[in-house]
Amino acid sequence: MKGDNNNPTIMSGRIAADVEMKDSDIRLGADELPYVHKVGKPPKQDLLKEIKTALKETFLSDDPLKPFKDQPKKKKFVLGLQTFFPILNWGRDYSFSKFKGDLIAGCTIASLCIPQDIGYARLANLPAQYGLYSSFVPPLIYAFMGSSRDIAIGPVAVVSLLLGSMLQDEIDPNKHEHEYLRLAFTATFFAGITQAALGFFRLGFLIDFLSHAAIVGFMGGAAVTISLQQLKGLFGIKDFTKKTDVVSVMRSVVNSAHHGVSQAFWNWQTLLIGVSFLIFLLVAKFIGKKNKKLFWVPAIAPLISVIVSTFFVFITHAERHGVLIVRHIEQGINPSSVHQIYFSGPYLAKGFKIGVVAGLIALTEAVAIGRTFAAMKDYQLDGNKEMVALGSMNIIGSMTSCYVATGSFSRSAVNYMAGCNTAVSNIVMSIIVMLTLFVITPLFKYTPNAILASIIISAVLGLIDYDAVVLLWKIDKFDFVACMGAFFGVVFISVEIGLLIAVGISFAKILLQVTRPRTAVLGKIPRTTVYRNVEQYPGATRVPGVLIVRVDSAIYFSNSNYIKERILRWLTDEEETFKDHPRVEYLIVDMSPVTDIDTSGIHALEELHSSLHKKDVQLILTNPGQTLLAKLHASHFADRIGEDKIFLTINDAILTFAPKMEQA
Amino acid sequence: MKGDNNNPTIMSGRIAADVEMKDSDIRLGADELPYVHKVGKPPKQDLLKEIKTALKETFLSDDPLKPFKDQPKKKKFVLGLQTFFPILNWGRDYSFSKFKGDLIAGCTIASLCIPQDIGYARLANLPAQYGLYSSFVPPLIYAFMGSSRDIAIGPVAVVSLLLGSMLQDEIDPNKHEHEYLRLAFTATFFAGITQAALGFFRLGFLIDFLSHAAIVGFMGGAAVTISLQQLKGLFGIKDFTKKTDVVSVMRSVVNSAHHGVSQAFWNWQTLLIGVSFLIFLLVAKFIGKKNKKLFWVPAIAPLISVIVSTFFVFITHAERHGVLIVRHIEQGINPSSVHQIYFSGPYLAKGFKIGVVAGLIALTEAVAIGRTFAAMKDYQLDGNKEMVALGSMNIIGSMTSCYVATGSFSRSAVNYMAGCNTAVSNIVMSIIVMLTLFVITPLFKYTPNAILASIIISAVLGLIDYDAVVLLWKIDKFDFVACMGAFFGVVFISVEIGLLIAVGISFAKILLQVTRPRTAVLGKIPRTTVYRNVEQYPGATRVPGVLIVRVDSAIYFSNSNYIKERILRWLTDEEETFKDHPRVEYLIVDMSPVTDIDTSGIHALEELHSSLHKKDVQLILTNPGQTLLAKLHASHFADRIGEDKIFLTINDAILTFAPKMEQA
Repeated sequence: MKGDNNNPTIMSGRIAADVEMKDSDIRLGADELPYVHKVGKPPKQDLLKEIKTALKETFLSDDPLKPFKDQPKKKKFVLGLQTFFPILNWGRDYSFSKFKGDLIAGCTIASLCIPQDIGYARLANLPAQYGLYSSFVPPLIYAFMGSSRDIAIGPVAVVSLLLGSMLQDEIDPNKHEHEYLRLAFTATFFAGITQAALGFFRLGFLIDFLSHAAIVGFMGGAAVTISLQQLKGLFGIKDFTKKTDVVSVMRSVVNSAHHGVSQAFWNWQTLLIGVSFLIFLLVAKFIGKKNKKLFWVPAIAPLISVIVSTFFVFITHAERHGVLIVRHIEQGINPSSVHQIYFSGPYLAKGFKIGVVAGLIALTEAVAIGRTFAAMKDYQLDGNKEMVALGSMNIIGSMTSCYVATGSFSRSAVNYMAGCNTAVSNIVMSIIVMLTLFVITPLFKYTPNAILASIIISAVLGLIDYDAVVLLWKIDKFDFVACMGAFFGVVFISVEIGLLIAVGISFAKILLQVTRPRTAVLGKIPRTTVYRNVEQYPGATRVPGVLIVRVDSAIYFSNSNYIKERILRWLTDEEETFKDHPRVEYLIVDMSPVTDIDTSGIHALEELHSSLHKKDVQLILTNPGQTLLAKLHASHFADRIGEDKIFLTINDAILTFAPKMEQA
Repeated sequence: MKGDNNNPTIMSGRIAADVEMKDSDIRLGADELPYVHKVGKPPKQDLLKEIKTALKETFLSDDPLKPFKDQPKKKKFVLGLQTFFPILNWGRDYSFSKFKGDLIAGCTIASLCIPQDIGYARLANLPAQYGLYSSFVPPLIYAFMGSSRDIAIGPVAVVSLLLGSMLQDEIDPNKHEHEYLRLAFTATFFAGITQAALGFFRLGFLIDFLSHAAIVGFMGGAAVTISLQQLKGLFGIKDFTKKTDVVSVMRSVVNSAHHGVSQAFWNWQTLLIGVSFLIFLLVAKFIGKKNKKLFWVPAIAPLISVIVSTFFVFITHAERHGVLIVRHIEQGINPSSVHQIYFSGPYLAKGFKIGVVAGLIALTEAVAIGRTFAAMKDYQLDGNKEMVALGSMNIIGSMTSCYVATGSFSRSAVNYMAGCNTAVSNIVMSIIVMLTLFVITPLFKYTPNAILASIIISAVLGLIDYDAVVLLWKIDKFDFVACMGAFFGVVFISVEIGLLIAVGISFAKILLQVTRPRTAVLGKIPRTTVYRNVEQYPGATRVPGVLIVRVDSAIYFSNSNYIKERILRWLTDEEETFKDHPRVEYLIVDMSPVTDIDTSGIHALEELHSSLHKKDVQLILTNPGQTLLAKLHASHFADRIGEDKIFLTINDAILTFAPKMEQA
C-alpha cells in the first residue's frame, strides 16, 4: 500500500526511494507515530548525469558559466571580457568619493611598501631596485584583473625568503649575479604559469590541502627565521652564514662577537641605530594596535625611519665608521627581462621547480588574504579567477624585471583600514613607486642596512599569530601538532623542510581521517524516538537484544576492513560487558552518515554479514542514502540480507523486530 | 528543569551532554512527543585520554595485548612465544586426522609448485633452481610463524615479474649474473625488513591504501604482460625485447617472424609442443572449474605436462631441432647467501628501493589471500602478526638463496580445496621440494622451455578477474576507472608505471572524498518527525521559511571552504527556485554526519554565520556529536550563535522556531 503523500511518478534521473507504509502488528497510537516506513529499491543510476554532477562539483562548484546562460553573443563577449578584467565591471560605477578613499589608502601603503620592498629584495638575495620593480608592474596588472578590493600587491617577506633560499641552493648570488637573476626571473615566470594554470583548469581547490594550522606554523617559523637573518644587518656582521636554521645563525652571531679584530665583528654604531629604530617601530606598532584610528602611525613609521636615519648617516658620515649602507639603487623603471628567462638548458627545470613551490606559497597567501577581507566586507571572491589574475601578473612581472609578488598581509590590513574602496589604491601605490624609481632612488644611497633590518623585523613579527596557536591547541590537538611541526621544521632545519613537514602532516591527517573513522553505539533518548551515541548521552538506554552501531564515514577501501572489524568488536564488547542482558539477536548498523561505499566496502559488508550469520545475529541497515542504496542494490547485497532488513529509521527497525522494547 | 530519566552525575572523562527538557510554548500531546531536547554544554575534554584513544584505534585497534592482561609472568612469556609462533598454540591440538588432509594438500600443491617455480624464476631473470629454493625455506618458516591455515607460500608470478623488471633496470642479468643475483638477495632482504617492520610497528593498515579496484587492474595487467613475455618461450624466439609493454613485445614477435633466416625466428616444433600442452592445461583447468571435486586435475596437469614433454624431448632429441630446453638445474638444497647481500655500496640503496616496492606488493597479495580464506573458514587473522611472519620468512629466505616469496592465489585455492587443515601442508610441500632439489633436478634437463611458458600462461590467466571488473563497473565507476588505469598502465607502459597509476588513483579518490563531500537539502517525511534528503524521498516536504541542509562529512581544512560556499549556494538556489514561498528565515544545518571539525572548519562556520547574519537568516545547528560539540564550545562558536540555537533533532528546532509548520 502506497502512502498517499507520495509522488507516485519516479522522476527521471532521480533516485526515488518510495516511502511505503505497511499495516504492521504494532499499535497505532498518536498522530505522528508509529508507521514503519520502508526504504524502497531505487531505480538505476544515470551514469552520465552522475559523472557530470561529480565533475561539476569538483571543478565548477561555483557555477561560473551561469551569467552566460541565455545571453546574446555580443553580451557574452562583453561578459567574457568582464570576467577576465573585472575593472570593466566596477570601473563603470567608479566615483570621485571612492577615489578619495583609494588615494589615501594608496599613499599609505606606498609609504609602507617602499622601505619594505628594498629589505625584502635583500631577503631574496636580489639588488634593492628589484623589490621596487615588483611593487610597480604587478599591482598595476592586478588592478585590472583581480577581484579583491582590499589586497595590497607586492613582494612579501616569506616568499622572498623562500625564493632566496631555494635559488641560492642552485646558484651562488655573489659569484654568479647575472645567472642568479636570470634564474629568479625564470622561477617567477613559472610561478605565474603555475598560478594561472591552477585557476584556468579550475584546480584552485588544491591549495585547500595546505591546512590553516600548517600555514600558521610555517608563517611563524618563517617570521622567526627572517628575524634571525636580520641580525646580520642589525649587528653589522659581514661574514654571515648562508644557512637559515637557528643553530647556524646563532653560531654565526656568537662567533662574530669573538672575532673582534677580523672583518666579522659587531659594529656598535650599527647596533645603536638599528635597535633604536626597531624600538621606535615597535612602539608605533603598539600605538596602532591600541587605537585603530591611529593605524597610519605604524604605516608611515618605516618611511620616517628611513628618512631620519638616511639623513643622520649623511650628515655624520657614519658609513666611514663601519655602518653598512645601501650604497646604490639603480634609477629608472623596470627594464625588460624577457630574454633573461631560461627557456632551455639545465636551469629551465630548476627554475620550474622553484617557481612551482614559490608560486603555490604565494598563491596560498594571496587567496587567504583575499578571502579574509572579502568576508569582512561581504563580497564574493572567485578563487579561480583570482588565481588567473595573480598568475598573469607574475608572468608579466617576470618579463619586466620583477620577482614573485603576491598579497601582503600587513599592507593589505593597512589598505583596508586606510579606507580603500577598490583596486585603484594599488594603482596609486604603483604610480608612487614608479615616481620613486624615477626620482628619489639616489637618495637611498645613505640608508643604513640596519634600518632595513629593523623594518623587516617589525613587519614579520606580525606573522607570528599567538592567538591562532592558542586556538589550535584548544580546538584540535592534531592541528596544533601540525602547526608546531611546520614551525620547528622551518626554524631548526630549513624553509623547504618546514614546508614539506607542513604538507606531510596535513596529508597524514586526511589519511588518518579516512582510515580510522569513528563508530558509536547508539541508545534511545528516553521519551523520544531518537537514538543517539550512548557515550555522549549517558541517559540514552540500550534496547535489550539489539545492538545499534553507527558508522561515521563513507566506507571505502581505506577503512572498510577496519569498520568491519570494529563493528564485530562492538558486538564482542557488548556481550562481555552486559552478560546478564539477553543475547544480542539484532545488529542494527545506522548508515545515516555513510555517504558512499565502494567495492571494497561492499566486500566488507558481505564479510560482516556472513560473520554475523554464523553467530546467528541478524544484520539490519537503517537510513541508507541514495548513492549507498543504489550500490547496495547494484551489488545485490540488499537482496542477500533481505530488503525487509533495510529501514528508514532506527525506530522503525526496533518497532518491527523488538516491539516489546519500544517503550523502554 | 532536569529530565528525570537522565543520569545527573557526569561520569569522569566522559563528555556528557545533558538532555534538558523545557516547558515550551508548544502543545504537549502524545506520549513520546514533543518535548524539545536541548543539547547541553559538554565538560572539558580529557586530552590524555583522547590521545590514548586515538593512538589505540590507529595502531592497536585489534587490542593485541588483551590476552596478556592480568596473567602471571610465566604465562605471559608462554603467550608471547605463542604470539610469535602460533604453531605452539595449534600444534598441541594437532591430530592424525588433520595430518591426512594436510598431507594430501601438501602433495598436491608441491606438484603444482615445482614446475611453476622453475618458470617464475625465469620471470625474475634468475636460474631455475632459485625458484625451487624459494619454495623450500620460506614455507617452512611461515608454517611456524604464520597464522593463516590455507595460504600456500612460494614465488608468485606478479612479484617475480616486478622484481625481475626492476632489477634488470639496474643490472643486466646476462652480463653481470653474479651482481644481479646479489642485488636480488638484497632486495629480498629489504622486502622482508619492510614487511616485518610494518607488522612490528603495527602499520599494517597502510596496505589498505592500495584499493581493491587498483589491485584487480594491476593483477590483470600483470597477467597479460606475463603471458606476452611467454610468447618468447612459446615461439622459441631467441632475440626478444627486454621491455614488457604490449607494443614492444608484439613488435618483437612480428619481427622475428620476418627474420626467418637469422637467429631470431619462430620454431615450429617449439610452437607445436607449447600450444598443444597449453590446450591440455586449459582443458584441465576447465574441468576443474566445472566440477569442484576434480580440482586435482588442473593441480597435477602441469607436472604431467613436464614429465611427458621432458620424456618426449629426451627420446626425440628435439633440442637438436631448435627446441630450447632448461639444460641445467643445480642439484642440492639452498646454499647460504648471507655474504652476498649488499650491506654497503651503491647497490644498497637500489636494493632497498626495489625491496620496499616488491615487499609491499607481496604483502598486499598475501594479506588479501589470508583474509579471503580466513573469512571462508571463519577464523580471525591478525594482519600485523601475519606481516611479521611474512617478513621473517623473507629475511631468512634472503640469507638462504631465496628471492621474494609470498602467498600464491592459485596454489592457496588448490590447498584449500585439497582439504588442508593447518600450515603443515606447507611443511609437506617444502619437504617434497627439498627432495626434488636433492634427487630429481637433473631429470629436468630436457624439459622444453615452451612447456614452462604454457604452465605460466595457464596459471596467470586466473589472475584476470572479469567478474570483479564487471562488479566494479556496476557498483562504482570511479573504482572501475582506477582498475582500468592500472591495467592499461601495466600493459602499455610498464609494471612500475601501472603500479604508480594504481596508487595514484587510489589516493586521488581519497582526496576527492575529503575535498568535495556531499551536502543535501532535507524535507520532512509526511506523518513522521523524520527529515530526509528531498532528492532521495521526493515525498518529503519542505518547511516554508526554513532551509534544512545536511553536511555529509567531517569539516576539515580540505573541505571547509567548499562546505561553507555550498551551503550558501543551497540558500541562493532555494530562494530562486521557490520565489513564491515565504523568505527563508532559518537555516538549519544538520550536523549528524559531521564527526569532527578542525580550526579551518570552525573558521568556515564563523564565516557562514556572519554571511547569514548579514542576510538576516538565523543559523541553527542540530545533533552535533560529542567531539564536534566540545570543539564548538572550546572555540566559543557555540556562544556566538547562541546555545539556544543548538538542538538535538531537526524536529526540535522546527518545533521551537516554526511551530506552525510542524503539521505540514
